[in-house]
Amino acid sequence: MSGQSHDHPHETGDVKASGWFDPSQSQAPVLDFERGEYEDRVARTQREMARRGIELLVVTDPSNMCWLTGYDGWSFYVHQCVLVPVDDMPLWFGREMDVNGAKQTTYLPFGRLIGYDDRYVQSPDVHPMDHLADIIKGYGWGARVIALEMDNYYFSAKCYTSLRAHLPDARLEDAAALVNWRRLVKSPQEIAYMRKAARIVEAMHKRAFEIVAPGMTKKDLAAELTYSGIVGVDEEGGDYPAIVPLIATGREASAPHITWDSTKIKKGDVTFFEVAGCYKRYHCPMARSIFLGKPPQHILDAEKALLEASERAMEAARPGNRCEDIANAFFTTLRGLGFDKSSRCGYSTGLSYPPDWGERTISLRSGDTTELKPGMTLHFMPGLWYDDWGLEITETLLITEGAVECLANVERGLMVKD
Amino acid sequence: MSGQSHDHPHETGDVKASGWFDPSQSQAPVLDFERGEYEDRVARTQREMARRGIELLVVTDPSNMCWLTGYDGWSFYVHQCVLVPVDDMPLWFGREMDVNGAKQTTYLPFGRLIGYDDRYVQSPDVHPMDHLADIIKGYGWGARVIALEMDNYYFSAKCYTSLRAHLPDARLEDAAALVNWRRLVKSPQEIAYMRKAARIVEAMHKRAFEIVAPGMTKKDLAAELTYSGIVGVDEEGGDYPAIVPLIATGREASAPHITWDSTKIKKGDVTFFEVAGCYKRYHCPMARSIFLGKPPQHILDAEKALLEASERAMEAARPGNRCEDIANAFFTTLRGLGFDKSSRCGYSTGLSYPPDWGERTISLRSGDTTELKPGMTLHFMPGLWYDDWGLEITETLLITEGAVECLANVERGLMVKD
Repeated sequence: MSGQSHDHPHETGDVKASGWFDPSQSQAPVLDFERGEYEDRVARTQREMARRGIELLVVTDPSNMCWLTGYDGWSFYVHQCVLVPVDDMPLWFGREMDVNGAKQTTYLPFGRLIGYDDRYVQSPDVHPMDHLADIIKGYGWGARVIALEMDNYYFSAKCYTSLRAHLPDARLEDAAALVNWRRLVKSPQEIAYMRKAARIVEAMHKRAFEIVAPGMTKKDLAAELTYSGIVGVDEEGGDYPAIVPLIATGREASAPHITWDSTKIKKGDVTFFEVAGCYKRYHCPMARSIFLGKPPQHILDAEKALLEASERAMEAARPGNRCEDIANAFFTTLRGLGFDKSSRCGYSTGLSYPPDWGERTISLRSGDTTELKPGMTLHFMPGLWYDDWGLEITETLLITEGAVECLANVERGLMVKD
Repeated sequence: MSGQSHDHPHETGDVKASGWFDPSQSQAPVLDFERGEYEDRVARTQREMARRGIELLVVTDPSNMCWLTGYDGWSFYVHQCVLVPVDDMPLWFGREMDVNGAKQTTYLPFGRLIGYDDRYVQSPDVHPMDHLADIIKGYGWGARVIALEMDNYYFSAKCYTSLRAHLPDARLEDAAALVNWRRLVKSPQEIAYMRKAARIVEAMHKRAFEIVAPGMTKKDLAAELTYSGIVGVDEEGGDYPAIVPLIATGREASAPHITWDSTKIKKGDVTFFEVAGCYKRYHCPMARSIFLGKPPQHILDAEKALLEASERAMEAARPGNRCEDIANAFFTTLRGLGFDKSSRCGYSTGLSYPPDWGERTISLRSGDTTELKPGMTLHFMPGLWYDDWGLEITETLLITEGAVECLANVERGLMVKD
């Protein structure tokens, strides 16, 4: 995890508020954060760009686009991006028909919203990035050091080869997850949204425990979970989570990323469901497992080991420790109790869009030396997947000055219903 | 749309059935199609590869992976692919923890499932494609002509640069949407699944019309639509559609890709909802618009123009015509009636995963000269988005030997509820 600098979030931004408001815009957008918070995010991104010698950043990850500008909409199935110059306000670039959505959801002046013609959409002959290159040149940035999110969602190989071909004078670099790393420490408002998401995921699990019974189909459980997640709590609805409910039962539960089908939940099987509450695109993921009937000894042993190892891991989740300290505490304890797991036991979470509610920065595994800081939020995800069963009992953690906080309050353990 | 050959689907495949079954596999996977149908799909893909001189195809689009092998799971947030050699059975490559999912959902012998270590997941230091390159070399394919889905989902720029760096002797080419184009004409079983999806989307729209009323929140409408879509009809549940419900009302409806929030639907506004029924990952998308109260004249005029232009378009949707004939009939009629639209009026649809239920092949617009053939399925999507209102009335079409068939049966027009 070398090469990742940690900046100081939530300072006053460098970008002046006066430059960010266009009084000619008749209708104010609906923003989920104060304008100053967006300015601070852009300023922190620009500071890191300056530190790395990057003059222009092309941001395609929808989560990063939203975090920087507020842009929200299911338009990421076509190419779009936010351009961040190191010394100026961002620009939004997307399909012409989505400009109205950008007007409604971002603080950007309309002059900073650039729509491209529909003929660029999914065409074998022309590519939106061909056009973006012309725009970049039009702004006089054609010979800049331009960083691309080379491994972030929706930045395809063709996006890269198009920009490379059409910006021959630019120096193209890999920004990697530059913006994602800026998002690690959450602001008070972000944490408030994640707490709302936690209330929603609590309601989802409560509903699941009420209704699961032998003979219930997984699709009906998925429908109920999804319904609860969108209806939300206290008149405040939930958004679509970045991942749909993952529901598996019996032998299927050996596979962590199965969704659901119309078959029935049976007595004598473990069923797990991994879901998230989502509020203003902020997630609180949580998985629980349920057993209908009397659990066999190997499942009870696994539960005991999982809970014990989770306790040790959460004790290590405190400021000053490293991410790998959480993982090492977990894996050492788990192995000592006779179980094993070959995958990471968690990752950072927060604002996201499909296909992932992780932030693609921290992974809880040996070798991740990221220092834990108050305000970080992690999905601690110690799933066990054996050849003919699986067990998932997870928590979304908030790192605080003191002991770690579990954002959602759902009894931790194998839920048993007889 | 030049350069797209049209092969003859549903012939007997070249690959022998005998090579496809491993009797040592104790548990049969759950497959949505007969084994012979998968073999035919692979054979058609291999014929097109041979025609283009491609020796190995790297398939990352989850829809293409599923179509070729049956693989199903929400694992596309990490890198994975199906390798198709021109002369042998495909291989599945993915995260180690997802191998069990591949065992449960694909017909591939376990020896053709290759899992990679979890340390490759979202790491700043190593990339799964580094490892894939070694596997390709291990099979003796390191100097082959290898085609990549350069602009398909989840094949990032980094995937490309990793393969380029680690396969110095290969000739890397752009496969473009080679597999997607093979999927245009649906088999009888695929059409049967789309008809099930049509029953589901009918139920969703019926439910929406029942419950929409002034003061209802959009999140409650989204929850109900989603619930209906997953519960399905006749004991057969729906899958998650590749796009969540797009629900917009009033001025918002000027933006086609807004999802929902907790605000209320008001009397005097147009509200549209674009949703899909989804069955075994096959989609039947459909949008309708609803007006609460008495619609003003400009909305009624728009509805009339939209319906008239849609009729002309659907008359042109017959074998022998070109895709652009549908578009030209639509746009000419619409303009003649005083309205305009600057975007395509549809695309092919079928099997899909987020973020798009389109197939990314046909676009209904001028210049798309793809010949219409029986068995093609198109989402005819003539949405109108003006500055302070929008109107969507769409159909999923099946091209037949005769007149076009609308897969879902929902009254076509602006729904008015007083």
